[in-house]
Amino acid sequence: MKTRSWKIQGSFGLDGLRLVEGEVEDPGPGEVQVAIRAVSLNYRDLMMVEGSYDPSQDLPLVPCSDAAGEVVAVGDEVEELAVGDRVIPCFAQGWIAGRPTRPRLRRTLGGPLPGTLTDARNFPVSGVVKAPECLSWEEAATLPCAGLTAWSALTLEGDLGPGQTLLTLGTGGVSLFALQLGRALGAEVLVTSSSDEKLERARNLGARHGINYSTESDWGRKAKELTGGEGVDQVIEVGGAKTLRQSLQAVRIGGTISVIGVLSGAEAPLSVVPILMRRIRLQGILVGHRDGLHSLVRAVDAREIHPVVDRTFPFEEAPAAFEHVKEGKHFGKIVIRPD
Amino acid sequence: MKTRSWKIQGSFGLDGLRLVEGEVEDPGPGEVQVAIRAVSLNYRDLMMVEGSYDPSQDLPLVPCSDAAGEVVAVGDEVEELAVGDRVIPCFAQGWIAGRPTRPRLRRTLGGPLPGTLTDARNFPVSGVVKAPECLSWEEAATLPCAGLTAWSALTLEGDLGPGQTLLTLGTGGVSLFALQLGRALGAEVLVTSSSDEKLERARNLGARHGINYSTESDWGRKAKELTGGEGVDQVIEVGGAKTLRQSLQAVRIGGTISVIGVLSGAEAPLSVVPILMRRIRLQGILVGHRDGLHSLVRAVDAREIHPVVDRTFPFEEAPAAFEHVKEGKHFGKIVIRPD
Amino acid sequence: MKTRSWKIQGSFGLDGLRLVEGEVEDPGPGEVQVAIRAVSLNYRDLMMVEGSYDPSQDLPLVPCSDAAGEVVAVGDEVEELAVGDRVIPCFAQGWIAGRPTRPRLRRTLGGPLPGTLTDARNFPVSGVVKAPECLSWEEAATLPCAGLTAWSALTLEGDLGPGQTLLTLGTGGVSLFALQLGRALGAEVLVTSSSDEKLERARNLGARHGINYSTESDWGRKAKELTGGEGVDQVIEVGGAKTLRQSLQAVRIGGTISVIGVLSGAEAPLSVVPILMRRIRLQGILVGHRDGLHSLVRAVDAREIHPVVDRTFPFEEAPAAFEHVKEGKHFGKIVIRPD
Amino acid sequence: MKTRSWKIQGSFGLDGLRLVEGEVEDPGPGEVQVAIRAVSLNYRDLMMVEGSYDPSQDLPLVPCSDAAGEVVAVGDEVEELAVGDRVIPCFAQGWIAGRPTRPRLRRTLGGPLPGTLTDARNFPVSGVVKAPECLSWEEAATLPCAGLTAWSALTLEGDLGPGQTLLTLGTGGVSLFALQLGRALGAEVLVTSSSDEKLERARNLGARHGINYSTESDWGRKAKELTGGEGVDQVIEVGGAKTLRQSLQAVRIGGTISVIGVLSGAEAPLSVVPILMRRIRLQGILVGHRDGLHSLVRAVDAREIHPVVDRTFPFEEAPAAFEHVKEGKHFGKIVIRPD
Repeated sequence: MKTRSWKIQGSFGLDGLRLVEGEVEDPGPGEVQVAIRAVSLNYRDLMMVEGSYDPSQDLPLVPCSDAAGEVVAVGDEVEELAVGDRVIPCFAQGWIAGRPTRPRLRRTLGGPLPGTLTDARNFPVSGVVKAPECLSWEEAATLPCAGLTAWSALTLEGDLGPGQTLLTLGTGGVSLFALQLGRALGAEVLVTSSSDEKLERARNLGARHGINYSTESDWGRKAKELTGGEGVDQVIEVGGAKTLRQSLQAVRIGGTISVIGVLSGAEAPLSVVPILMRRIRLQGILVGHRDGLHSLVRAVDAREIHPVVDRTFPFEEAPAAFEHVKEGKHFGKIVIRPD
Repeated sequence: MKTRSWKIQGSFGLDGLRLVEGEVEDPGPGEVQVAIRAVSLNYRDLMMVEGSYDPSQDLPLVPCSDAAGEVVAVGDEVEELAVGDRVIPCFAQGWIAGRPTRPRLRRTLGGPLPGTLTDARNFPVSGVVKAPECLSWEEAATLPCAGLTAWSALTLEGDLGPGQTLLTLGTGGVSLFALQLGRALGAEVLVTSSSDEKLERARNLGARHGINYSTESDWGRKAKELTGGEGVDQVIEVGGAKTLRQSLQAVRIGGTISVIGVLSGAEAPLSVVPILMRRIRLQGILVGHRDGLHSLVRAVDAREIHPVVDRTFPFEEAPAAFEHVKEGKHFGKIVIRPD
Repeated sequence: MKTRSWKIQGSFGLDGLRLVEGEVEDPGPGEVQVAIRAVSLNYRDLMMVEGSYDPSQDLPLVPCSDAAGEVVAVGDEVEELAVGDRVIPCFAQGWIAGRPTRPRLRRTLGGPLPGTLTDARNFPVSGVVKAPECLSWEEAATLPCAGLTAWSALTLEGDLGPGQTLLTLGTGGVSLFALQLGRALGAEVLVTSSSDEKLERARNLGARHGINYSTESDWGRKAKELTGGEGVDQVIEVGGAKTLRQSLQAVRIGGTISVIGVLSGAEAPLSVVPILMRRIRLQGILVGHRDGLHSLVRAVDAREIHPVVDRTFPFEEAPAAFEHVKEGKHFGKIVIRPD
Repeated sequence: MKTRSWKIQGSFGLDGLRLVEGEVEDPGPGEVQVAIRAVSLNYRDLMMVEGSYDPSQDLPLVPCSDAAGEVVAVGDEVEELAVGDRVIPCFAQGWIAGRPTRPRLRRTLGGPLPGTLTDARNFPVSGVVKAPECLSWEEAATLPCAGLTAWSALTLEGDLGPGQTLLTLGTGGVSLFALQLGRALGAEVLVTSSSDEKLERARNLGARHGINYSTESDWGRKAKELTGGEGVDQVIEVGGAKTLRQSLQAVRIGGTISVIGVLSGAEAPLSVVPILMRRIRLQGILVGHRDGLHSLVRAVDAREIHPVVDRTFPFEEAPAAFEHVKEGKHFGKIVIRPD
C-alpha cells in the first residue's frame, strides 16, 4: 500500500522535514495495519526534530509518537483486533505492564523507532489499544503520551481522590490532562499560569483556583495558603529544576511531587532539606505502560473526558504545526490530520 | 524521686551542658516512670546542643531522644506496661501510625520536648514500646532514631527483599542499621566509606561489596557496575545534595533514593533529568512512627540483630561523648549510661 | 451537667430500653464535652439492644455509636478543638491509624464502651473528628460507622476509580454510602434490590444499573453481563455467606469482594475454587480508623456528598426508631435527635 | 529435529500416556528451541492426565508445565537469549506482568497449550526466563509453578518480613517453597504435617515450629498459641474449604490467608463472621506472572535457595513418576529427566 510520511531527513531542524512517498508492507503475523487519522504533537517531538532530544538518533526518522487510527488490515494470529477497530499506539512499544526497565523503555515511537507522522503503518497487536469510543480522532490521538503521563502520575504513583488537592504548573498538555483526570478522580485542582485568560479557561475545565505566577511570584506559598496552610497533596511538576523550589513550598508534609518535564532548564541549585524534613517524595514519571493506557481509555469513556485540542493542522502543514508548538501559546494539544 | 539530668543551659554549645539535679513527679494517669539505663547519641543531638539544629529552641533543654530504660512506676489507667518492663521511647511522641502530619512530627524528644539524657523521667504509655528481649540496654537505646529511620526507609517506603540490592553511603548509624536490616530482609548490600578498615568491618556485618570513595571518586558508577550494570534498587542517601549526583548514577531505572540526612551540605546543583528519564523516586524519610518502631523491635528479636555500639561513656562524661560524635571517626553508635 | 440517656437496663430487648436522667462530669485533661445533636442507628445497635450481638455485655449500657454534636466544654491540654466545634465520634475509640489489632478494635462505642444515645457526654480529643461543614447534624451523624465502613472498603482496601465498576448489594446504609462514595471516586455503580422503587431511587443517586434480585435470581451473572462479561472490580458484600455465591459470579478475575455484614445468615457452603482459579480477594472490613474518618470528612466536604436520611425520630421515641430499623423497609439512615 | 514426547492420547488416565516420536520445527521469529533437561510434576499435571482438571481438554496433549532446559537454537529477532542459555518456562505464557485477566491466564502450558514432558520444544522468548545459576536442572525445573505460586503469595500479595510469622499447611511443593522463601524473607515459619518425620525435615529447612495435625486436631488454635496468642500474619492455605476453618483460627486480626489449592474438597460450610470481625483477607493465588518468576530467580540465586527434590525418574518411567505423586508420600518435588 502506498503511504505518505513526514521524515526528518538529511539533517535535524524543522527545515529538515520532508513529506516522502513510500510503501507499507502487508501486516505480518501478530501485526495490524493502521490508517492514521490524527497525530498529536508533544514537546519531545519538537526536540527530536530539532536534534536536541537525542542528537545520536539515526536519520531519516518519521517523527511523533501520538496518534489515533483505524485498523485496515490484520496479519495472521491476530485475535484481539479486527478491521474497522479504532486504536491508539503505546509510546513505549515494549512496556506492557510492571516496573520500568531499560528494555521496556527503549523501544519508543518517534525515535528510536519510526513514529506516527504518516498516513499508514503497521504495529504489533501488543503495541496498540482500542481508542475510547466517546472521542474523536483528534481527541483520541492526544492520549498516548500527555494523557498517559498525567494518568500514571495521578493513579499509579499517587493516590489522588476526593478531599485531596492537586497543583498543576501551567496549561501544557500534561497539565491540562492532570486537571481533567484529577477532577474525574474527585480531587480539587489548583492551576498556575502567566495568563489570566488561560486561568479562566482552566476554571471552566473544573479548576478550583488559578494562580497567576507573573503577578504572584511566590506561587508555591500561595498554593499552600489556598489549602488552608496544609499544602497540596500532589504537584505535577513540569518545569524542572527551576520551579522545584516553589513546588517544594506548595506540597504538604508527606506529599508527592511528580516530575514530568524539564522545560525551564535542566539543572538548578536544590536544597534537599525540605525533602527530608517534610518527608516529601519526588517521583519521576516517564509516560507509562500499556496497562495504564488501557485503564486511561476506560476512565475517559466512563467519565466522557474530552481532551482539549487547541488547533488541528492538515497533513501538508505539519511544519507549521511544529512551529505552533514552538511558540508555546497554545492551550491544549496540537493535532495533525493525515487524511 | 530525685534525678540527675544533663541540660543545655544558658547558651548553646558543648560547654553549655550542665549536669543538674532535679525531681521527677509521680507518673500521672496513662504515664509510666522510666529509669533510663542507656542513651544513644545522634548527629541531630550534637546539632541541637550546638544550636545549629533549631536556634529558636527554648533553653534549658534536656538533650537527646534515644534511650532504653526500665519501668519503675506506673500511673493510673496503665494496662499495657508494668514495673520491670524494658522500654524504648518514640522519637516523635505523637505519631502512632499513618501518614506524617505537622502535629505528628512536632512533638519530638530532645527538642522541642525534653529529652532522654537523664536518669529518670515519665512518658505517656503511647510514647514508648517494649524493648527487644535479645538486646542489652546499650544496644536497645540505638533503635528509636537511627534504627527506625533505616527500617522506615527499607520497609515502609521501599520494598526491599531477596534478589534486590541496597547501597548505603558511609558507616554512620543509619547506614549500619540499613546494612544489618537490609541483610535481614534478604537483600545484598553495597557500602561506601573512605576507610578500608571500615569497609572490612562492614563486610563482616554482611556487606557484599565495599567501595572506597576516596580512591574511587566515581563511586556511583562503580556501584552500578557491581550490580551487572543494572543499578541498585535502593540507595540510603545520608550525604545530602553533594552526594546525590553519584547516587543518581548508582540507582536502577525505577529505583528509590531514600533521603535521610544532610551531612555534606544542604544545597547543591541538581539535574532533575535523570529523575525523570530514569523514573527515579527520591523519598524523604523522617524517622518513623510508633507502629514502625514496634515492628522493628519484632524484627530485631526474630533475627537477633545486634546494633553496633562503638563506645559507651559514663553519665558524667556526656560532653566527651558528644565530642566523640563530632570527631566522626566512630563505627556504630555512641552510648551514655546514666547509672 | 444534667443529662438524659437511653440505657439498656435490667435485661436485653427493646423493652429493656429506659430513658434515664444522670450527670456528666466536667471534661478531664485531654477531653471535650459534646452536646449530642443527632444519633444514627446501625443494625449492630439493634442487635446489641436485643442481646444478640454480645450477650456477655454488661448492663446497663447506653447504646449506639454514631452521632454528631457540638463541643460545649473543653478540658485542660486540649489544643485541637474549641467550644462551638461540630464533631463526630470514632466508632473504635483507640484506633488512630495503622493496621487493626485487638487493642485497637476492642474499645468501641455502644458496647463495650458507653454509647451515644444521650444528650451529652465526654470524649477524649483523639476519639472525635470535626464534622463536615456541608452536612446537617442528622447527615453528619451517619458517617462514623456506615460511612466509614464504605469508605474503608473503597479506598483503603480497594483502588476504585474512573473506568471501574462497583456492585453494591441492597440499599442499606453501607451500600448507599458505597454508591455515593463510589460515584465520587469516579466509578460506575451497580445496585441490587428486591424493590423497583428502591432501584429507581438508587439510580437517582447515580447508580448506572439496578438489578431486581427478586425477579433476577441469578443476579451475579446479570451483573457480570452488565460489565460486558468481564465482571465488576469490587463487590460490597453485606449479605454474608448466602449471597457470596452470587458475588463470586459477579466479580472479575483478580477482583475484590469486601465482606461487610452478615445479615443473611452466618454460615453457608462455600466453594473456594473460584477464589483460587479467578484469583479473587475476600477482604473483611471492620469500620475503620480515625485517619480514615478524617479523610472521609474531607471527601464529603469536597464533593458535597449528602448521606441519605430515611427518617428522624425525636429523642423520646428512640424505641420506635429501633423498631423502624427492625422492619427493614427504610432507604437510608434512621436518626434520633436528642434536643 | 527428532523428539520424543509423552502424550495423553486416546483417553484420559495414566494408562493413556504414550511415549511418541515426533519432529520439532526450527524456531520461528522471536522463538527459541529448548532441549528439556528436567520436568517437574505438579498435582495439576496428575489431575490433567486423569481428566479431572479439565475434561473438555482436547487430546492428544503433552502434559506438564514445569521444566528447565538449554537453548539449542534461536530464531530471528531474538536478542535476549543465545544458544547455551539455561531457561525455565512461564506457566501462563501470556502473562508478562500486571493484573490477571482472562487472556493472560488462558494460555497455560500442559493444557490447553502443549506441555513440557518432551525432550525438545520451541517457546517464544517472552515465554521463558533464565534459570538461576546456582541450581541444577532438577532444582530449576521446580520453580515455574510451585516456586512462583509461593513467591507470589509471599511477596506480591503479602508483605512478609522479619518479625512476622507464616503458617504453611503440609509439606507439598508450594508449602515447602513457602517455608524456604519465607525464611529468605526473614519470617518465622510454622509447618503442619501428619508425620513427625516430615516435621523434623521441615525444621531442618528452617521451620521454627512443627504441628502434627493428626495428634493436634485443633491445629489452628495451636498455631495461634505458638505466636503468643496473636495469630500468624499469613497462612498458605493449600487444603481448600475443609481446612479453612482452622486457618481462620490461626491467622491474626488483619492477617492474610493465601488460597492456593483445593486438595481436601472443593466445598465446605464457611462462616464469614471471622473474616468480617477479624478483618481477614482471603486471597486466591494463581501461580503468577513472568516478572514474578524473574524476581524469584534473582532471589533464589542471591540466597542460594535449593528447592527440595524428592526423587528423579528417567524419562521412560514418567507414568511411575505420576504414580508417585498420586501416592502423596513424597517430601519435595518429583522430577523426570528426558535425557
